[in-house]
Amino acid sequence: MTDNDRTVAIGESMIRPDALTKVRGEERFAVDHYPSGLLWAGVKRAGIPHGHLLSVVTDEAAKIPGVCAVLTAADINGTNRQGVIRKDQPVLVDERIRHCGDPVALVVAETQEILAVALEQIRFEVEPLEPVFDPCAALRSDAPLLHPDHPDGNALFTAHITVGAGENGFADCAEMVEGEFDLPRQAHAFLETENGWARADNDGRVEITVSTQTPFRDRSEVAEALGLSVDRVRIIAPYCGGAFGGKDGITVQSLLALAALHCPGRPVKMWWRREESFLAGVKRHPARLLYRLGADRSGTLAALSVEAWFDTGPYDHLGGVVAALGIEHAGGPYRIPHVDLKTRAVYTNNPVSGAFRGFGVPQVAAAMESMMDLLARRLQLCPLELRRRNALVRGDHCPAGSTRQGSIGLTACLDRLATHPLWTTREQWRAAAGPHRSHGTGIAAVAHGMGYGPLVPDTATAAIELLPDGRFSVQAGVVDMGQGNAATYLQMAADILNQPPDRLLLILPDTDRTFPCGSSSASRTTFTYANALIPAARKLRELLLARASEMMLVQDHREMLLVPGAVRHLPSGRDIELARLGSLLSRDERFVSHHYRAPAARETPSDNSNLRLHGFPHLIFSHAVHLARVEVDELTGRVSVAAYLSISDCGRIINPVVFSGQQEGAVAQGIGYALCEDVLVDRGQIRTADLATYILPTSLDVPPLETLAVSLSEHDGPFGLKGAGEIGIDAPAPALANAVEDACSIRLTRFPLTAERVLGALTERNNPRRS
Amino acid sequence: MTDNDRTVAIGESMIRPDALTKVRGEERFAVDHYPSGLLWAGVKRAGIPHGHLLSVVTDEAAKIPGVCAVLTAADINGTNRQGVIRKDQPVLVDERIRHCGDPVALVVAETQEILAVALEQIRFEVEPLEPVFDPCAALRSDAPLLHPDHPDGNALFTAHITVGAGENGFADCAEMVEGEFDLPRQAHAFLETENGWARADNDGRVEITVSTQTPFRDRSEVAEALGLSVDRVRIIAPYCGGAFGGKDGITVQSLLALAALHCPGRPVKMWWRREESFLAGVKRHPARLLYRLGADRSGTLAALSVEAWFDTGPYDHLGGVVAALGIEHAGGPYRIPHVDLKTRAVYTNNPVSGAFRGFGVPQVAAAMESMMDLLARRLQLCPLELRRRNALVRGDHCPAGSTRQGSIGLTACLDRLATHPLWTTREQWRAAAGPHRSHGTGIAAVAHGMGYGPLVPDTATAAIELLPDGRFSVQAGVVDMGQGNAATYLQMAADILNQPPDRLLLILPDTDRTFPCGSSSASRTTFTYANALIPAARKLRELLLARASEMMLVQDHREMLLVPGAVRHLPSGRDIELARLGSLLSRDERFVSHHYRAPAARETPSDNSNLRLHGFPHLIFSHAVHLARVEVDELTGRVSVAAYLSISDCGRIINPVVFSGQQEGAVAQGIGYALCEDVLVDRGQIRTADLATYILPTSLDVPPLETLAVSLSEHDGPFGLKGAGEIGIDAPAPALANAVEDACSIRLTRFPLTAERVLGALTERNNPRRS
Repeated sequence: MTDNDRTVAIGESMIRPDALTKVRGEERFAVDHYPSGLLWAGVKRAGIPHGHLLSVVTDEAAKIPGVCAVLTAADINGTNRQGVIRKDQPVLVDERIRHCGDPVALVVAETQEILAVALEQIRFEVEPLEPVFDPCAALRSDAPLLHPDHPDGNALFTAHITVGAGENGFADCAEMVEGEFDLPRQAHAFLETENGWARADNDGRVEITVSTQTPFRDRSEVAEALGLSVDRVRIIAPYCGGAFGGKDGITVQSLLALAALHCPGRPVKMWWRREESFLAGVKRHPARLLYRLGADRSGTLAALSVEAWFDTGPYDHLGGVVAALGIEHAGGPYRIPHVDLKTRAVYTNNPVSGAFRGFGVPQVAAAMESMMDLLARRLQLCPLELRRRNALVRGDHCPAGSTRQGSIGLTACLDRLATHPLWTTREQWRAAAGPHRSHGTGIAAVAHGMGYGPLVPDTATAAIELLPDGRFSVQAGVVDMGQGNAATYLQMAADILNQPPDRLLLILPDTDRTFPCGSSSASRTTFTYANALIPAARKLRELLLARASEMMLVQDHREMLLVPGAVRHLPSGRDIELARLGSLLSRDERFVSHHYRAPAARETPSDNSNLRLHGFPHLIFSHAVHLARVEVDELTGRVSVAAYLSISDCGRIINPVVFSGQQEGAVAQGIGYALCEDVLVDRGQIRTADLATYILPTSLDVPPLETLAVSLSEHDGPFGLKGAGEIGIDAPAPALANAVEDACSIRLTRFPLTAERVLGALTERNNPRRS
Repeated sequence: MTDNDRTVAIGESMIRPDALTKVRGEERFAVDHYPSGLLWAGVKRAGIPHGHLLSVVTDEAAKIPGVCAVLTAADINGTNRQGVIRKDQPVLVDERIRHCGDPVALVVAETQEILAVALEQIRFEVEPLEPVFDPCAALRSDAPLLHPDHPDGNALFTAHITVGAGENGFADCAEMVEGEFDLPRQAHAFLETENGWARADNDGRVEITVSTQTPFRDRSEVAEALGLSVDRVRIIAPYCGGAFGGKDGITVQSLLALAALHCPGRPVKMWWRREESFLAGVKRHPARLLYRLGADRSGTLAALSVEAWFDTGPYDHLGGVVAALGIEHAGGPYRIPHVDLKTRAVYTNNPVSGAFRGFGVPQVAAAMESMMDLLARRLQLCPLELRRRNALVRGDHCPAGSTRQGSIGLTACLDRLATHPLWTTREQWRAAAGPHRSHGTGIAAVAHGMGYGPLVPDTATAAIELLPDGRFSVQAGVVDMGQGNAATYLQMAADILNQPPDRLLLILPDTDRTFPCGSSSASRTTFTYANALIPAARKLRELLLARASEMMLVQDHREMLLVPGAVRHLPSGRDIELARLGSLLSRDERFVSHHYRAPAARETPSDNSNLRLHGFPHLIFSHAVHLARVEVDELTGRVSVAAYLSISDCGRIINPVVFSGQQEGAVAQGIGYALCEDVLVDRGQIRTADLATYILPTSLDVPPLETLAVSLSEHDGPFGLKGAGEIGIDAPAPALANAVEDACSIRLTRFPLTAERVLGALTERNNPRRS
């Protein structure tokens, strides 16, 4: 018996099957594909933020030997438009340039060197238009419009939610605190930048292998943009080398398909370098948030007002959905009877904002959880007690007005924190600061909704098959972008089928070989797919036991049991090998699929149908409480994170090691968001163009992370789980801001909390300006 | 919002609702009932171990003023026999006395003082018979027979299981170790000794309020023994003040019923003092075990031979079932291909042995896990590695020949232990011993089967009702003897119904008010009842949503949601209070029950139908690995437990605080079993008659306990749980014996490991006898 023969139960840490291939460099990501006869495709980008594209001169480039194709919008037969909700982004610019990264022309060449030379040779004529970079300015009536056809001008999406007495709720508040918060633009900075390769056959069918979170949606988008029938497009999605939302939507797909269709029979590869990824890929929405929070003297929350502006850049790219999710979460996981919430996603000529782990929630959580500490300070209440007193429980209305129906482990998390040494020894930590240092501890509590919301069907179809060699294949049409969901699927199926996980093969997403399973996003990936997989695996188990009982002349198939590698007739002890069973049955007899649609909210707390379309309200939420312990160097302003604790309610934990990995990664990314990451943009031009100037936290900046879970069961969750992929990034920014205030009595509301900003605030604290 | 309004999810620690009433002394156990007009009943006991009862003289006693009744076997109209499998125990001795605690006459009096005087006045004439006290001697052909009508003489139960080549498996073993083990008689020593009260009405119907684990079985037993129709007996079972198996079967019930029937209209109370409890109550079976264990040179187990003798005392009282469960577990949680197992439960004139938490497994685990360490030492292998190498996985055959079908978290427990500081720092611990002290660390791994086995139906019927005041009642016909299962039922129902637990009332077992739910025993209590309760609660939820939707003129009841205190129509936000719903519906419309029968093994690894009747084989097993760190005082022989760790696989943990309580209690009881507890019996007379001479561990003898769980999910378990009540007591004895050997190289095989025995072994180690 080796470790490979071990069965693994639900709740047991299982090393993911892709771990070894990845650490050895044997796993082939999209970027690792170099088919023979490869051509290289590249894009000429606009370089200016706003203008009418009058003409593109491609002749010089096309003449270069080794250049196979130079293509412009004129070569596109379809809509030339992409986008998830509003299709407003061209594959290649046809009329208007809206940001510096817009693609103007596409070149295909025999080598990367020829490609680079050819791209240099492309010229285009532009009539500059007045750009707009500030979301508030973009909403003024005299602002230049990015999409003149959009009925709401530069307001891509607006929503207003009033609950209870709304603003009037402040009338009765004994205490009120206010705050104005600025959250930065964050880069996904995944290891594997946007890339893929495509090949079209002579019949015009194109196969695209691409680093993506959304293979089935990509297929439709490519087909529509290029004017193809959907069955003419195949998307193959290997493991992703990171995505975090940055591959939730089209990146290279349509460009690759266009290139391949013009070079039939030849594989064409496109791979954005880091600078191009920064320039053309999406970012987390910068946000400006105005908050007012009112309470009675005992700390019971009474009223909340929020105004939010999300800078969505020039294209929708889920920007409206981000703004909707942000405002749904703006009041945090608390009971607040009177609420007024306003949100806008605004078009600007800045880089494109889009999906990013957290999806609008890290922004509002940074504000709301800072407000909670401001209020606690005002009321001289313990910050933990203030949160505990107002924590939502099942059946409560949340601040945005919907009933919280799913499990809520928030109080359980807060209770766990209350007895944790990092919390109980916070005074000792404060007292242990050396000269010119100050020590503080901050906490934050967050909720995070799962899934697509009430209108967009949140579905998956899982398939599982006994192979003739006695192994099983699990067909998952949803991507594993590194989070480990694929391993969790194998763990669940192996548990139900009572097989060692290595007797199960995973079929990665491929629109020709797997069923549609939705996107790897919105903390719904494992929830939705596993809810399809579990019944499929159970059906297959019953089917195999029935077939085996017939072969063994057994009357009652309940006498049969799946054991590793075989079906056993228990009363007689006889086994039939799975390989024998698999070879005797036709495929239809050993194949099962199951379709699942996640439950959706049946409430309509807002009559804004647009808000509903954009996903409001959600039904099931995960929760977390984070604690950060910091040291502030009062001479330099540098904030060091000395210890970090997350306590999460993500339902039942299926594979603890994968769960911890998700939380650790999210916290590290959240520490970057809080302390150093900021894509600086100056009049539409990115000033932090690469990883030398865009500062990511390294292992030296991330302290030991303690990752706990309360592991409650969610009724609707597969084996009780809830989403765990995003919530870990919602809390670090406010926990760190609260820790900095606890350390040195400065309240920073502009993130990231760079040394420069901290030092400025310390200087002001020490020398207050006279008013 | 107070804590009382909190909903509680599965997996969340919930303070049990009975905690406050218990610590305040407000919970009314059976013993706390003093109805007005109370009479007292008491028993005259034999005081000799074996004899023919020739006559009983009751006249003197009956004449005493205030004596209401003096009753003997002649006053019993029924079978006068009690017992679960074999009905061999008289309510009052009719012909033969078989142990010193046998009841000869029953007296009812107005006061305890009069009762005591009357009992003194009872005389009886006896023809002494030769007694037998040693189980091996009792099996000799010339031994005196306790039950001449029993076809197998003094062998209450015997079984022989051969797997693979049986004894012949040793032929190929490179290494073999042997051992002979003696396990002591342990007393349950519950806080609330055996007691109850009864009242018969003038129609001859009798109600008995009693401290019991088995109200429904008690009803049948009382009825049959006394010749009543079952519907003439009502058993009411309040919370038990401890039981541990000692109340799994009749104690005072039939005596009380007999007394009450002779004093109609008057409540009659019986309460055994500690000495009477020790004398007449059951004990853990003393056992003698001969082990041989063979392996190849790499430590792969190959062959096992076990011979077991269990001293069952004079009556069955589940003794055969204990011997069967013991032998089923004799090979531990390991793969061993060739096995020969022999077991006997033997009648003697010692005190009655019966059910006790662990139920035969602590005895065999003490031997088997000592053998594993002996083998590891012989092979110079790490004891953890030896266990890991041979650990059963799902689908394996266990040593007794059945397939392990349920979840097996044993390797997960071993893996967790391997990285635990108490394991990784064991060399530091050894080195830290002061002068004349030695330090050691021992481990043990165990499995424990759940439920009644294949033949006796393991069933429960749960009922749940919405009350007119808007609360819910949960009717549980299975006893909570202190382990907290009742709280777990409320937690589960509250979770499904989305109500704070204190909106749920628990109806404790009462044969008139609840359905039969089996015994509180065999680690099956929560498993079986909760599997009935969960569907009942779900059915009630659907029923209430449907009724509420009709009242609110809603078409689709899926738009309805249970929230605390109400049903909500989600699209409109309208609520209907549960109190209103409860008052509008008839009881049949708001009451749901569900019957559940636990799955049972379909294998017949043995063709011994008697073994099958006695519960072999089991289907689902919990697992655990324990570690004990000891200090041995080499001058006195005293063993101190410095630290103790348990890592358990009991499926999904529902309420962590209740789970930990079970493990901590079991480990404390197991430390007592290992180190000090021993009911000493000399020619049938108990020499440790009370808690001054029977030594229980106190809080000073129990070290800090660390209680971990791997919390895997069992498919058939309610929310994934497996039984957790017994397994904690299986491992302490061998873990401690192994730790003592690790500390000072002495192997003790006679338990408990008293200072006297340790000192003896140390002396022998230092001055080995010449052979």
